[in-house]
Amino acid sequence: MKRTERVGAIIRILSENPCKPYSLGYFCDLFSAAKSSISEDIQTAKQILAGMELGIIETTAGAGGGVRYVPHISEKDAMELLDHICEKLRDKNRILGGGFLYTSDLMFDSNIVKRAGEIFARRFMHQNADYVVTIETKGIPVALMTAHMLNLPLVVIRRESKISEGSTVSINYFSGSTERIQKMSISKRAVTPGSRAIIIDDFMRAGGSIKGISDMLSEFEIENVGTGVVIASTEPQKKKIQDYFPLIYLGPVDENGKTIEVFPNSLIFCKKDL
Amino acid sequence: MKRTERVGAIIRILSENPCKPYSLGYFCDLFSAAKSSISEDIQTAKQILAGMELGIIETTAGAGGGVRYVPHISEKDAMELLDHICEKLRDKNRILGGGFLYTSDLMFDSNIVKRAGEIFARRFMHQNADYVVTIETKGIPVALMTAHMLNLPLVVIRRESKISEGSTVSINYFSGSTERIQKMSISKRAVTPGSRAIIIDDFMRAGGSIKGISDMLSEFEIENVGTGVVIASTEPQKKKIQDYFPLIYLGPVDENGKTIEVFPNSLIFCKKDL
Repeated sequence: MKRTERVGAIIRILSENPCKPYSLGYFCDLFSAAKSSISEDIQTAKQILAGMELGIIETTAGAGGGVRYVPHISEKDAMELLDHICEKLRDKNRILGGGFLYTSDLMFDSNIVKRAGEIFARRFMHQNADYVVTIETKGIPVALMTAHMLNLPLVVIRRESKISEGSTVSINYFSGSTERIQKMSISKRAVTPGSRAIIIDDFMRAGGSIKGISDMLSEFEIENVGTGVVIASTEPQKKKIQDYFPLIYLGPVDENGKTIEVFPNSLIFCKKDL
Repeated sequence: MKRTERVGAIIRILSENPCKPYSLGYFCDLFSAAKSSISEDIQTAKQILAGMELGIIETTAGAGGGVRYVPHISEKDAMELLDHICEKLRDKNRILGGGFLYTSDLMFDSNIVKRAGEIFARRFMHQNADYVVTIETKGIPVALMTAHMLNLPLVVIRRESKISEGSTVSINYFSGSTERIQKMSISKRAVTPGSRAIIIDDFMRAGGSIKGISDMLSEFEIENVGTGVVIASTEPQKKKIQDYFPLIYLGPVDENGKTIEVFPNSLIFCKKDL
């Protein structure tokens, strides 16, 4: 097998399995090649992806040395994605009754949520989380993609406790969007006390759901080490949680309004994350 | 830029965007290279992926000629995945009351559902579908990954009609699993009359949900051109739908039983699909 072939296959295998560690020996066996050749191939693969900002290949030296692919969306690609979502959101046909906006097509678009997941992964990469947590339904795709990019399990909180979830813990919380008390429940089997979670959701108004998830996780002594939402509304200004990372801000939706005010979070990659 | 670098980058870009067509010109511009060089690079990329059964690169010749990556999970990798899921399912701690089995961890495991999505994509690739359709909640991850592999939109049917879905159409159906009448609703905005859909779900017992989805789609003159489920129970033998494609069969779950009877569909890739 030639060098180009090995490098191409290494890029394909690593980038399809983000954050999954591979030993050098795995590739030596796969290509029947010496460790020195594989090391060179991996260096080449690393330079290719880094040069085009298509991802980072991390290597650790020594006897137990290995290699893994870390997703890395460029600032340019990230801003292009956010501009694309904003443009879609400005379509006035999206306005529903009650100040709601139709967003299901965007939240169920695999290409959009995959790239959004790459942004969340880049932001929360160093939080040493044990899971990604979301609440059904529209946040599941973006949370799944974030979990995939970070090679973490996804935990989905249900609105109702289901027999298929086994024993659950439930809480009631006040949802500002629906203006009523809602319930959420988590399967005891899904989580381990003392662990760390990233919360990902599609939309946040006052933050009642996120606060509820955080409270419920703390019942298991699980720490919320990061919160990402695709869209955060600018109103109310006072939120129930302080520390959250939105991709897009949405102004108040007026049913008779002429425009939908929506703009990207221009600080998605501040210096400390680079 | 050297040949190896171009081939590596082409593999990365195409394989991250399954079934998305790219023009040769796109890569000419990206690498400032001549069409003849890019054509050769693509041929090399194609041979690398084909040789290792990591995917298929399809090219169309002529002035509007282009290239796309078609996912292709090998029969060996597919069977390994199914064996892995079966092994996990045989854990007796999964047995819940009422003959249910805990499967949420598997259905929310991004690596498992991604590969299952590749199997469904390979099976339904030539159905010329316009969407992948599922019903909340546990089928969403595998349906999303299937949609991603086929570059199709995902449509998620809700249990209750939500204001954030706009106008909806609802039906009542009999669910054998819960032994009661349930409701499902679909957003009118999500679908176009006269189109074609693939239905993907996590679990099927008698097929009531799938039949319900199919009936609801036919209200919009949408044809069901394929149905895939991750797990199908062997009981009842008589299903409400005839044509479905399961990855795994599950025997009756006896709460006091010593074993969980589960086995892979050994005919996942019959000759006609190759």
